[in-house]
Amino acid sequence: MRQCYFDHAAANPLDPAVMDAMLPYLKQEYGNPLSIYELGINARKAVEKARQQVAALINVKPATVIFTSSGTEANNFALRGIAMARQAQGKHIIISKIEHQSVLNSSRLLEKSGFTVTQLSADKFGFVDPKSVEDAITEETILVSVAHASREIGTIEPIREISEVTKKHNVILHTDGVATVGNIPVDALDLGADIISMTAHQFYGPKGMGALYVREGLRVSPLIYGGIQEGGRRAGTENVASIAGMGMAAELAMKQMDERRAYLAMLRDKLIRGVLTIPDVRLTGHPEFRLPNHASFVVEYIEGESMLLMLSAKGIYSSSGSACSSRSLKSSPVLLSLGMPASLAQGSIVFTLGMGNSVEDVDYFLQEFRSVINKLREMSPFSKGWGNSGA
Amino acid sequence: MRQCYFDHAAANPLDPAVMDAMLPYLKQEYGNPLSIYELGINARKAVEKARQQVAALINVKPATVIFTSSGTEANNFALRGIAMARQAQGKHIIISKIEHQSVLNSSRLLEKSGFTVTQLSADKFGFVDPKSVEDAITEETILVSVAHASREIGTIEPIREISEVTKKHNVILHTDGVATVGNIPVDALDLGADIISMTAHQFYGPKGMGALYVREGLRVSPLIYGGIQEGGRRAGTENVASIAGMGMAAELAMKQMDERRAYLAMLRDKLIRGVLTIPDVRLTGHPEFRLPNHASFVVEYIEGESMLLMLSAKGIYSSSGSACSSRSLKSSPVLLSLGMPASLAQGSIVFTLGMGNSVEDVDYFLQEFRSVINKLREMSPFSKGWGNSGA
Repeated sequence: MRQCYFDHAAANPLDPAVMDAMLPYLKQEYGNPLSIYELGINARKAVEKARQQVAALINVKPATVIFTSSGTEANNFALRGIAMARQAQGKHIIISKIEHQSVLNSSRLLEKSGFTVTQLSADKFGFVDPKSVEDAITEETILVSVAHASREIGTIEPIREISEVTKKHNVILHTDGVATVGNIPVDALDLGADIISMTAHQFYGPKGMGALYVREGLRVSPLIYGGIQEGGRRAGTENVASIAGMGMAAELAMKQMDERRAYLAMLRDKLIRGVLTIPDVRLTGHPEFRLPNHASFVVEYIEGESMLLMLSAKGIYSSSGSACSSRSLKSSPVLLSLGMPASLAQGSIVFTLGMGNSVEDVDYFLQEFRSVINKLREMSPFSKGWGNSGA
Repeated sequence: MRQCYFDHAAANPLDPAVMDAMLPYLKQEYGNPLSIYELGINARKAVEKARQQVAALINVKPATVIFTSSGTEANNFALRGIAMARQAQGKHIIISKIEHQSVLNSSRLLEKSGFTVTQLSADKFGFVDPKSVEDAITEETILVSVAHASREIGTIEPIREISEVTKKHNVILHTDGVATVGNIPVDALDLGADIISMTAHQFYGPKGMGALYVREGLRVSPLIYGGIQEGGRRAGTENVASIAGMGMAAELAMKQMDERRAYLAMLRDKLIRGVLTIPDVRLTGHPEFRLPNHASFVVEYIEGESMLLMLSAKGIYSSSGSACSSRSLKSSPVLLSLGMPASLAQGSIVFTLGMGNSVEDVDYFLQEFRSVINKLREMSPFSKGWGNSGA
């Protein structure tokens, strides 16, 4: 049976060159980067080389990149680190309703310690309107956090326009770049965000490795306290092998950016065109301003989980939304926040393509997906009329 | 030239079997543990197997083990997680002066948010007296944190006796087990600590991987918020390969515990006996109740850094204290807190042995160490009289 891994937002296979970059630091080069002898120096050099590679990917200085253990850690670090460092200036934060749980739950934590959080709605395409950001800013606002792209609906947000608003009002802008960095060109200065989260396993690097870009001169309180690693900004013995892997993944992403984007967008467009010929299926997110590898839909009358399971029996692997919540079976809060009725939001399914996928994979998928939907609709009480919200 | 890596407290080489356990999750088994199809299930099984292996090492139930990205993260999680969860019951915390920086700096952070922290002195051997813990406990005390063993002086602390005190007063006991778990038998229930930090790279597992044991039924607030990973207690996509590696390292540590301890203690005792024949060199920490692989000294009239550099030129790799501070060149605060004069504390040097070391390594080291000390003393102004504090 053909295997079609269409869940690259959940996890990526390692690029073999990334693996090669990691192996020496899992074998002979096992030194601690803080040790002052050669084995330590070699490890430290690997960390600093990776920092240059990651910095180059987003066109910033290496010293502005701090390694973390995940995009989630980077998001916690960004929100809580800015909140702690700037609370004397104000205790109001603005996020959107379609942020990743690491942003949503970090902001909930801040609410418990006296911060006020405004959650902006996105429009039906998932766009956060820069005007709505401006309207929400008060004298107390210290931070705006809007993801560069949603992993659930793929829409790429107008971060540059939002940054014009935040700059005008002297507010810090954080963007969760987990879905974008390494997948579409991200030039931090051009984008205008002051802080950007990223994660290696979204661009063929290792799981358990992320980074946070913090604009030069901007103070962020640490999330993890201890030793002097990462300039005292993130303590803990460095995961040298994974850092080296993220560096190599960043270098490859930069070199192959155009080629990857073109190839993935071609597959994506083919997939979207094919799926939309199935009756009562809608694309979620924006048809044009979306991640090059991302195709997401709601399928009327059936539940996302049933589709996932039946597709996986055909060797097709996908997701019903963010991997971080895929075991919690409920309607996608992101889709609900876009104004979609719960009955439809239950039918959410997300396909994220990768460089290992082929045109033949998409052909196979389109054929199987149609048959899965037909089968599920035959069994569904919803498709016979009741529960149909008329959406 | 012979290579003698005597800095296993800073970093360990991976056991080849650990590497083998990691490789599948860096290659074909790249799924996200939250994905509901086979690739995800396989990753999830690897995480749960590792949880069982780590739990077995300290004789607890798997559900009480939470994976983290380092021992430092585990220590932050423990102190701040207990402080947040129990602040309504009191805001007083007791630690010792010889804790790792992750504990010291976490407690400093808590002081900034209104907690009071008592730092207990250790005696000249590095022992924290359970009586001093009891004397420091007030109505407000919620947490005591004393490391199971100091990575700087090797002394193993009387945690069981301290736990009798904390139980009597209904106070939570955290122990930083980074230096002990995987190196000496640690039975969590027998030890009596409620929370134990550990890290894989202290027992031939990967860097960037740690864990926190939290006694069943004890609530600890998360350090990293987001998705539902680790039962909602630690968010972020799991570092599956490193988790699998930590699991295998734990299994091997358990199986080979007695053999490793006997071998390392034999090397250590030979090293200590040899070094103590050099004039004006003293053992730090306790001569008997110390880590099996740990030998630490102060050498009069010379600086630790000079010794490190000259030894490394001879292929002998050691440390002047905690790796997390080895680039900050100052007298060891741990040694100072034991009442040692600054002039002596500057001459701190720590050797931590591993299974790759041999009797011949120790012989070579002893010969070279003597000559390094003689050479440095010839050059030292201190050895000619001035600056000698008479300690």
